[in-house]
Amino acid sequence: MALVPNEAIAAEVEMGADPSTVRATVVQASTIFYDTPATLDKAERLLAEAASYGSQLVVFPEAFVGGYPRGSNFGIIIGNRTEKGKEEFKKYHASAVDVPGPEVDRLAAMAGKYKVHLVIGVIERDGYTLYCTVLFFDPQGHYLGKHRKLMPTGLERIIWGFGDGSTIPVFETPIGKIGAAICWENRMPLLRTAMYAKGIEIYCAPTADARPVWQASMTHIALEGGCFVLSSNQFCRRKDYPPPPEYVFNGTEDDLAPDSVVCAGGSVIISPSGTVLAGPNYEGEALITADLDLGEIVNEKFTFDVVGHYSRPEVLSLNVRDHPTRPVTFTSAKTEDSK
Amino acid sequence: MALVPNEAIAAEVEMGADPSTVRATVVQASTIFYDTPATLDKAERLLAEAASYGSQLVVFPEAFVGGYPRGSNFGIIIGNRTEKGKEEFKKYHASAVDVPGPEVDRLAAMAGKYKVHLVIGVIERDGYTLYCTVLFFDPQGHYLGKHRKLMPTGLERIIWGFGDGSTIPVFETPIGKIGAAICWENRMPLLRTAMYAKGIEIYCAPTADARPVWQASMTHIALEGGCFVLSSNQFCRRKDYPPPPEYVFNGTEDDLAPDSVVCAGGSVIISPSGTVLAGPNYEGEALITADLDLGEIVNEKFTFDVVGHYSRPEVLSLNVRDHPTRPVTFTSAKTEDSK
Amino acid sequence: MALVPNEAIAAEVEMGADPSTVRATVVQASTIFYDTPATLDKAERLLAEAASYGSQLVVFPEAFVGGYPRGSNFGIIIGNRTEKGKEEFKKYHASAVDVPGPEVDRLAAMAGKYKVHLVIGVIERDGYTLYCTVLFFDPQGHYLGKHRKLMPTGLERIIWGFGDGSTIPVFETPIGKIGAAICWENRMPLLRTAMYAKGIEIYCAPTADARPVWQASMTHIALEGGCFVLSSNQFCRRKDYPPPPEYVFNGTEDDLAPDSVVCAGGSVIISPSGTVLAGPNYEGEALITADLDLGEIVNEKFTFDVVGHYSRPEVLSLNVRDHPTRPVTFTSAKTEDSK
Amino acid sequence: MALVPNEAIAAEVEMGADPSTVRATVVQASTIFYDTPATLDKAERLLAEAASYGSQLVVFPEAFVGGYPRGSNFGIIIGNRTEKGKEEFKKYHASAVDVPGPEVDRLAAMAGKYKVHLVIGVIERDGYTLYCTVLFFDPQGHYLGKHRKLMPTGLERIIWGFGDGSTIPVFETPIGKIGAAICWENRMPLLRTAMYAKGIEIYCAPTADARPVWQASMTHIALEGGCFVLSSNQFCRRKDYPPPPEYVFNGTEDDLAPDSVVCAGGSVIISPSGTVLAGPNYEGEALITADLDLGEIVNEKFTFDVVGHYSRPEVLSLNVRDHPTRPVTFTSAKTEDSK
Amino acid sequence: MALVPNEAIAAEVEMGADPSTVRATVVQASTIFYDTPATLDKAERLLAEAASYGSQLVVFPEAFVGGYPRGSNFGIIIGNRTEKGKEEFKKYHASAVDVPGPEVDRLAAMAGKYKVHLVIGVIERDGYTLYCTVLFFDPQGHYLGKHRKLMPTGLERIIWGFGDGSTIPVFETPIGKIGAAICWENRMPLLRTAMYAKGIEIYCAPTADARPVWQASMTHIALEGGCFVLSSNQFCRRKDYPPPPEYVFNGTEDDLAPDSVVCAGGSVIISPSGTVLAGPNYEGEALITADLDLGEIVNEKFTFDVVGHYSRPEVLSLNVRDHPTRPVTFTSAKTEDSK
Amino acid sequence: MALVPNEAIAAEVEMGADPSTVRATVVQASTIFYDTPATLDKAERLLAEAASYGSQLVVFPEAFVGGYPRGSNFGIIIGNRTEKGKEEFKKYHASAVDVPGPEVDRLAAMAGKYKVHLVIGVIERDGYTLYCTVLFFDPQGHYLGKHRKLMPTGLERIIWGFGDGSTIPVFETPIGKIGAAICWENRMPLLRTAMYAKGIEIYCAPTADARPVWQASMTHIALEGGCFVLSSNQFCRRKDYPPPPEYVFNGTEDDLAPDSVVCAGGSVIISPSGTVLAGPNYEGEALITADLDLGEIVNEKFTFDVVGHYSRPEVLSLNVRDHPTRPVTFTSAKTEDSK
Repeated sequence: MALVPNEAIAAEVEMGADPSTVRATVVQASTIFYDTPATLDKAERLLAEAASYGSQLVVFPEAFVGGYPRGSNFGIIIGNRTEKGKEEFKKYHASAVDVPGPEVDRLAAMAGKYKVHLVIGVIERDGYTLYCTVLFFDPQGHYLGKHRKLMPTGLERIIWGFGDGSTIPVFETPIGKIGAAICWENRMPLLRTAMYAKGIEIYCAPTADARPVWQASMTHIALEGGCFVLSSNQFCRRKDYPPPPEYVFNGTEDDLAPDSVVCAGGSVIISPSGTVLAGPNYEGEALITADLDLGEIVNEKFTFDVVGHYSRPEVLSLNVRDHPTRPVTFTSAKTEDSK
Repeated sequence: MALVPNEAIAAEVEMGADPSTVRATVVQASTIFYDTPATLDKAERLLAEAASYGSQLVVFPEAFVGGYPRGSNFGIIIGNRTEKGKEEFKKYHASAVDVPGPEVDRLAAMAGKYKVHLVIGVIERDGYTLYCTVLFFDPQGHYLGKHRKLMPTGLERIIWGFGDGSTIPVFETPIGKIGAAICWENRMPLLRTAMYAKGIEIYCAPTADARPVWQASMTHIALEGGCFVLSSNQFCRRKDYPPPPEYVFNGTEDDLAPDSVVCAGGSVIISPSGTVLAGPNYEGEALITADLDLGEIVNEKFTFDVVGHYSRPEVLSLNVRDHPTRPVTFTSAKTEDSK
Repeated sequence: MALVPNEAIAAEVEMGADPSTVRATVVQASTIFYDTPATLDKAERLLAEAASYGSQLVVFPEAFVGGYPRGSNFGIIIGNRTEKGKEEFKKYHASAVDVPGPEVDRLAAMAGKYKVHLVIGVIERDGYTLYCTVLFFDPQGHYLGKHRKLMPTGLERIIWGFGDGSTIPVFETPIGKIGAAICWENRMPLLRTAMYAKGIEIYCAPTADARPVWQASMTHIALEGGCFVLSSNQFCRRKDYPPPPEYVFNGTEDDLAPDSVVCAGGSVIISPSGTVLAGPNYEGEALITADLDLGEIVNEKFTFDVVGHYSRPEVLSLNVRDHPTRPVTFTSAKTEDSK
Repeated sequence: MALVPNEAIAAEVEMGADPSTVRATVVQASTIFYDTPATLDKAERLLAEAASYGSQLVVFPEAFVGGYPRGSNFGIIIGNRTEKGKEEFKKYHASAVDVPGPEVDRLAAMAGKYKVHLVIGVIERDGYTLYCTVLFFDPQGHYLGKHRKLMPTGLERIIWGFGDGSTIPVFETPIGKIGAAICWENRMPLLRTAMYAKGIEIYCAPTADARPVWQASMTHIALEGGCFVLSSNQFCRRKDYPPPPEYVFNGTEDDLAPDSVVCAGGSVIISPSGTVLAGPNYEGEALITADLDLGEIVNEKFTFDVVGHYSRPEVLSLNVRDHPTRPVTFTSAKTEDSK
Repeated sequence: MALVPNEAIAAEVEMGADPSTVRATVVQASTIFYDTPATLDKAERLLAEAASYGSQLVVFPEAFVGGYPRGSNFGIIIGNRTEKGKEEFKKYHASAVDVPGPEVDRLAAMAGKYKVHLVIGVIERDGYTLYCTVLFFDPQGHYLGKHRKLMPTGLERIIWGFGDGSTIPVFETPIGKIGAAICWENRMPLLRTAMYAKGIEIYCAPTADARPVWQASMTHIALEGGCFVLSSNQFCRRKDYPPPPEYVFNGTEDDLAPDSVVCAGGSVIISPSGTVLAGPNYEGEALITADLDLGEIVNEKFTFDVVGHYSRPEVLSLNVRDHPTRPVTFTSAKTEDSK
Repeated sequence: MALVPNEAIAAEVEMGADPSTVRATVVQASTIFYDTPATLDKAERLLAEAASYGSQLVVFPEAFVGGYPRGSNFGIIIGNRTEKGKEEFKKYHASAVDVPGPEVDRLAAMAGKYKVHLVIGVIERDGYTLYCTVLFFDPQGHYLGKHRKLMPTGLERIIWGFGDGSTIPVFETPIGKIGAAICWENRMPLLRTAMYAKGIEIYCAPTADARPVWQASMTHIALEGGCFVLSSNQFCRRKDYPPPPEYVFNGTEDDLAPDSVVCAGGSVIISPSGTVLAGPNYEGEALITADLDLGEIVNEKFTFDVVGHYSRPEVLSLNVRDHPTRPVTFTSAKTEDSK
C-alpha cells in the first residue's frame, strides 16, 4: 500500500499551526475483508502516517473494521435465504468486534500511541445482532464511547440492527466537540439537529456513498450546522473482497474484473462557510488532511445559529428520546440506567 | 425587457408532454423598486411568457412584489436610527401589499387569466408590521394561502416580523403538493421536516442568496425530501434600485456603478435524485423551465423516505405548533379563526 | 473614576433607616468596552462605594458586563455583512460571559462580600448565540437566576437571541420581590403584566434609552404596577469605546469627538405613587440612591391593584407560557429541566 | 362662557392643512350639574366653536353629560347609606341618558350639523344601573357605538356598573381608527393591549384625573401604542356643582369656596413619539387643538409595534372575551344579540 | 365576655340526640377590631363553649377575623381619598389573613381540638387585594376550602375584590352537605341556585345585615332550597371598634356613644319547612344552637325540589363558570391549578 | 257580599296622589265554583268597587275564573281513577275559558269600562288540556297577553298542563312594567330572575298558599327583585264549594263544616324595601289597596340591582328558552313563529 497524501492539501497544511487550529485527516482506504486482525494492522499504519503529518484527529470510513459487504445479498430473497447466505453471515459475524473487547482495546492503545483523536467505523457484535457503529478514542488512549447507526439503508436492514437515542454522542474534547453520523443518517434532518443541539463542531461522516451528489449534502450540513464536516469513505476495488465463489458480487456469476472500482471514495473536508478544504478524492486510497480554524464557527453562527438565534423553538421543537431502549429491562438495573 | 429562455431547457422541453409530467418555470427577474404597480405589470408579462411555453407552475423570487431592500441599512446602528432611515421604511411600508387586498386580487386574476399555478414572494403589510411572505394561487384564479417567513436573517429582523406555525402550508393541487420556504429558512432542518411531513412534492425556494453554495443546499433538499426543488432568485443590477441619494447602497457615499450586478440569480430546478434539470443561471433575467416527472419521487422514496420508513419516530420526534399565535385574541373572532 | 453620589439624594438618605425601608442604588456608569475583567473590577469598586452608603440593593445598567455596542452596525446591510463586522462580532462574543461561569462566580462573590442584592446587566453567551441578560445575586453570595431580554430592539436582533417565558423571574427576597425588564421590554404591556402577577415590588429597569420620554414610561410603570421603579442606564462618552478604526461609530469615517456624550444616562428611582425619589441624572457617572418605603405599596394598591381588584379577568386574561422553549429537548435531561 | 382657545395651539394650527393631517380638539369644560339639557346646550356651543377652527374630531371629558359627582360620597359608609345619599342618587340617575334615547339623538344631530367626529363621555342609564360610557358619532350624524368603563375606581363602584368585553370598540373612520379608554382604565395594560390589537390610531382618554402624573401615563401610552393620545378632562370650580346643602362636598359642612378649583383639567394631545402637541392646560375651560400627522405612526411602529413585530405571542398572549355577558339571555333575542 | 346561650334553645337542645340529628351553633359575637390574634383567641373560647354543649358545627359571622369596618368610609369621596383613609386601609390590610397561612393553620387546629366542623368569615389577603371569604374546616383539623364573596355591596366594593365561580364550594361531610353565601350574596338567585344544584343541605349565611327583613330572606331560602339555613351575624357596640380619632364612625366628628349598638345581630337557625328553630337574637353576644333533623329535607323536597322535579331545565337553565379566572395565567402552574 | 276595604289601608290611601304613584288593589275573594258566569259577575262587582277608590291596577287570585279545586283529588289513586273523578274533571273542564274566547272578551270589556289594568287568574282550556293561567288587560279594554304556570304543584300536575318559556311576559305599561308568577312558581329562582331581567316593577303573585311562611317569600322577592310585590289569594270557606256528595273535600265522607275556612287569604302588598304596605289579611274577603311610589325602586336598585350592577354574568348566566315549544310544528307556521 502506497498512500499518497492529497497534494493540494499537503501544500496548504503548514507546520507550526495556530493553536486555535486543528489538523485533521480523513482516511480513504479499504477494509481487508474477512480479516479483522489485518485490518487493524492496516489501521495502525494509516494512523501512524497521519500522525507523522501532525494530525490531531483521524477519521476512518464506515465499517472499516468488520467491513462493508458491498455487492453481497447474503442469499436473501423475499421469504427465504440460502444456506450459502447463512454461511456468509456467519463469517461476517465472526469478523465483527465486541464493544468493549480486545479489538477495542487495541484501537485505544493505537490512539494513545500516536496521540490522536480517533474516530473509526466498525461492525459491532452484540450477541447475535450486529450494529454499524462508530467508536471514539482520545489521545490518552481511552475509549470514549460509540455511535450506533440509527437506521440502516436497504439491505443493510437485514444484517444490522437499529441504534437508539442513547448512542448519539457528541464528545467535548480539547480540539472541539466531536460526533459522527453514518452514511445516509446524514440525510436525517432530525438526527442532525440533535447533534447540532449538542454543540457539534467537528462533524464526522463516515460513509459508503461515493456518488457526486454526496458532496452537496456535506456542503449543506457544514452550512446548516455551522460546523466542520469530515466525510470518510472507503476506496475499494473488487479485489479488496474475497474472490468468487467465496464472495459473489451483485448476485451474479459473471463477476466484476478484479481492478474494477466498487467504491470510489470522495472523502472530503469542508468548513462551516461551505468551503471545501480538502478533497473530494476519487482517485484511490489516500489520507486527506486539512487545518480547521475553529474561529470560523463564530463567524458563521453570527448569521445563522441553527439551534440558537435562528431557531423558532416555540413553533418547531424536536424531542430526542435518548434513554436506552431495550426489549427487556431488569428492575435491578434501573438505578444504573438513570445515571 | 427581452427575456431569453434558457436554451438548454428549451431543447429539453418538448410539446405534448407526458400527462404525469408538470412543466414548471422559475422566474429570475428584478422588482421595480418602490413601484408596486409597475412590478405587478412586469409580473404579468413574465407570467404570460411562461404560460406561452406551456408552463403550469410559475415561481417568482422572494419579495418580488414589495422588493428586497438589498444594500440598504435603513439608517440603523445599535441604539439609534436616522430620520432618513425612517423615511426609507415609510416608503418600503407603502410598497407592501395587504393580504387580502387589491394587489392580491390582481395576482389571483393573473393566475386565472394565464391558467397557471402561481407562487410569488411579496412583502406583506399587516398593520404596521411587514412580513416576507409567499402567496399561492391556482389556475382558476383563486388565492390559496400564504407562507410567512418564520425567521428573517440579519438586518431583515429589523424590517420584517416573524411568521408562526400557522403559515407553513403545503397545498394539494392537481399537479402535486406545493409549498415554499424562503431563503435561509431552507437551512432550518425542522422547518423542512415539517414540510416533508405534509407531503411536499414540489418544493419552492424563493431566495435572495446568489452564492454558489446555495446550489448544494438545493441539491441536498431534493435528496433529503425526495422532492423537486425550484429555487427562484432575482437578478438585479444597481440601477434596478433608485439612484442615490434616494437609495444608498452599502451605507456609503461611493455608490456602485449603475450596471454592477448586486444579485446574480442562480435560479435552478432539481429533481428528487439530485439531478439539475435547469439552471443555475447567473447571466441575467431569465425564465428557467423544466418538465418535472412526478414518478421519480416514488423511485427515490423507495430507498429514503425521510418521514416514512427512514424516520425513527420513537427516538426523534418533531412537534410543530401550527395554531396561529397572536398577541391578542378576541373570543368573538374564534369561529372565524377556526376556519 | 471619581463618582459623585447625587447630592440631593445624599441629603435625603439618612443613616438609621426604618426597618421597613430599603436603601437602593442605581449605578450610572460605562462598561470598559472589550475588556470584561476590567469591567468587573469597575463593578466591584462601584458596589463597594454603594455598600459604604448602606445600600442593600444595587442595580447596574443593561449590558454593563459585555457592553452595549452603541453606534456600531456590525457591518450589516440587508443581504450582506462585512468581514470587519464579523471580526467585531467575534470580539463581542469573546467579551460575553457564560452563565454559570467564572464571571458569574466573581459577581456572586462580590454580592456576598459587600452584602448587597445585586442586579446587573450582562451579555450572556450560550454557545454561539448571545443574549442580553440580567443576573440576580443575593447578599449571601448566591446567584439567584436570570432574565433574558424577550425581544431585542432594532439592530440588537442581529446580535442577540430572544428570551422565552422561562426567564421572567421575580425573586422573593427579604427586601421585597425583585425582577427586571430591560430597555424597551418596559414598553411591552403583556410582559409587565406577567411581572405584576408575580407580585413584583422592586421593578428594575436596566436600559440604554437616555431620551427624556423614558422618564414618562418609568413613572407610568410605577403607577400601573404599584411598585418602585429603578432605572439604570450607562453614562458613556465616545472615548469609553475603542477608538477608530477598531470601533467605528455611526458607520462613518468622521467619528465623534472623544468627549462626546453618546449615552446621557437618566437613571432614576420612582415610588409607587409616581414620585421621583432620586434622579434622573444626565450629568455623568453617578450612584443614585434612595430609601424605598415598602409600606407605600399597599397605599397605592388600595386604589389600583392591576392584577387584583382592578383587573377584569373574566374579560381580559393573559396567558404566559413560562416553560422553557428549546429547539431540541433530550428526554434524559427532562428531570433536570423541570426543576 | 368665554372660552379662549389655547394660544400656542392656535398659532400652531394653520389653515389649509395637509390631507394626511387631522385637526383634533379636546374640550376642557365642566358639566352643568344636574341639568342635562343645559349641558347639551353647552356641548353644542363648544362643538360649534371647535368646528369653526376646522376641527374634524372633538373629544369631551368623562361624564360630561350626566356629570362626574366629584366630592360626593352619596352618604355611604360601610354597611349603611343615608336617605340623603339615596336622594342624591335618584337625581343623578335622572340626569343620565338612555342609549339609544333622545339625548343620544341630539348629540348625533350636533355631530352631523357641525360635521365632526364626536367622542363624548356620558352617564348611561340602563334600567336602574348607571354606566360611565363614551359615545362615538360620525360627521354624517350617525351614532357609531359606545364604550362602557370596564372597572370604576373607588367610590365609582357604588354608583356605576361595570362594562364588559363587548364594548371596547375601535372604529375605522376616514380620519383613522378611533377608540377610548376612560380615566384609570388607561392604567389597565391588558385593556390598552386589546385596543392596540384593534389597530387604534387616535386614542381618546376622557378622564377625571388632573394630577401631574397623569401626563406621564399619557406620554407612555402614546409611545407604547404608537398612537396619538387625546386626553380630555373637565375644568371645574366648586360653583359648577349645586351649592350646599343640596350638594355637599367632601362630606363636610365646611364646604369649599365657590371659586375653588375642584378639577384642574390638564387636557393634552400627544403624538406617537411622545411629543406634546398641545396642552396640558391647567388654567381654565379651554379648547385644545392640534394637527395630527398620521404618517408619524408608521415611523414609530417601525421600531416598536406592540402587537406586531415587537410582540412575543408564543410567550405572552392576551385573551379578550368580547361577547356581551348578561345575567339572563332570552333565546328569542339571540339573533339580534349576535349582530 | 359572659356569653349566655339562648335559653329557649338550651331547653330544646337535649343531650343524647338522635344520630340523624346534627347539633349546630351560630356564633353572634364581635371581632376585636384591628387585633387579629385576640380575635382568634376569642374565636377559640367561643368554639370551646359551643363544643361543650355538644355542637358538631359552629358558624361564625362574616368577616369575624379581620373585621367588618362598619361605619367607616375609608376617607373616600368620588374622585379622591384622604391620607387618613389610606392609613386605615393599611391597618385593615394588616389585620387580614393569608390563605393558607398561620392564622388558617390555627383555625384548623382549633377545629381539630374541639372536634367540630367550623365555618368562619375572614378577611382574606391575596397580595394587595382583600376578599371577604368564608373558610371551612373539618373536625379532624383539616382546612377544606373557601368561598369568596362574589359581589361586595356598596362601599365594600372599594375595599374587597370580587370572587369568581371557582370558590362556590359545597362540601360533603358526615353531617351533610355544607356551603356558605355571605350577606347580600344571599339575595343573588343565580348564586343560590348554583348551591342548590350542588346539593346543599346546611346553608350557612354569615352576614352583616341586622335588619328585620333579613329574616324573610332566611325563611325564603330555607323554603326555596329545602335546606337548613344558619345565619350568623356580629353583635357589636361602638366600643368594639377603636375610639375616635383612630376610627371615625359615620364620617362624623360627633361620634356615637360607646355603648351604642351598631350591629344588632339577629342570628337565626331555620328548618327546611321555614320553621325558626333558634333565634333570631337581637339582645347581645350569644351562642344560638339547634338540633337539625336532616330527615326533614326529604319531606320538603317531596313537594318542592328547586333543582329537581320542580325545575324546568328545558326553559330555564343556569350556566355557572366555575373555573378560576385570573388576569394572568402561567402555563407552568397549570398542573397545579387543575388540582 | 259585603266587602270591607282594609281600614288601615283606606286611611293611608289619600286622594290626589302623586303622579309617580300608582294605586293598586289586590282582590281577596273566592270563585263561585262550577259557575263561571256568576264568577265573572262577581269579578265585575269587585273591579267596580276597586275602581271607585281610584285603583289603577287590580289583581285577582290564582284560578279565580274556573276555580281552584281545593280539597278534591279527582278520584285519583296511583294506577287508577274513579268514574266520579272523571265526572268531576268533566265539570271542571267545562268551567274553564278559551283564550281568546267570550269570557276573555268580557274581562277585556270590564277593564275598559272601569279603566283599570286587570291581572286575573283563570283556568285556561286549550283543547282537552287545562292550564293555570294569568291574563293581562289594559284600561283601554285590550287583552294584552297571558302567563301560563310553568310547573304545577303536587296533584295540580294531574289536572293542568305545564307552560313554556313563551308565556313569561312582562308588559311595559304607563304605570310600570307588570308581570305575574303563580303560587309556587314564586319559589323558582330562575323564573323570577327571567322576570327581573325583563325589568319587572310590579310583580303580581296570584296564589293559593295561605301559610304564614308565604309572607317571607313575598318580602324576599320584593328585596331581591327591587320591585313591588302584590300577592292575591282567595279567601274561601267550605261552603264556597258545592256540597257533598257533588264535591267531596279531602276525600272523606266526614266533610268539613260549611263555615270552615279552607283558604285563609293572606293577600299582601310589599314595597321594594320589604316594607308591608297593605295586608296581609287573614280575616275574610277584602280589597287590599296601597299606593306604590315607583321612585322607591331606584333607591333600592342603587344598592342592589339583581340583574344590573349586582349580577356576575361572567360567572352565573341564565338562559331562557322563550320560543314556544310544541309537540308538533307545521312548517307553514314557522314564519309566524319567528316573528
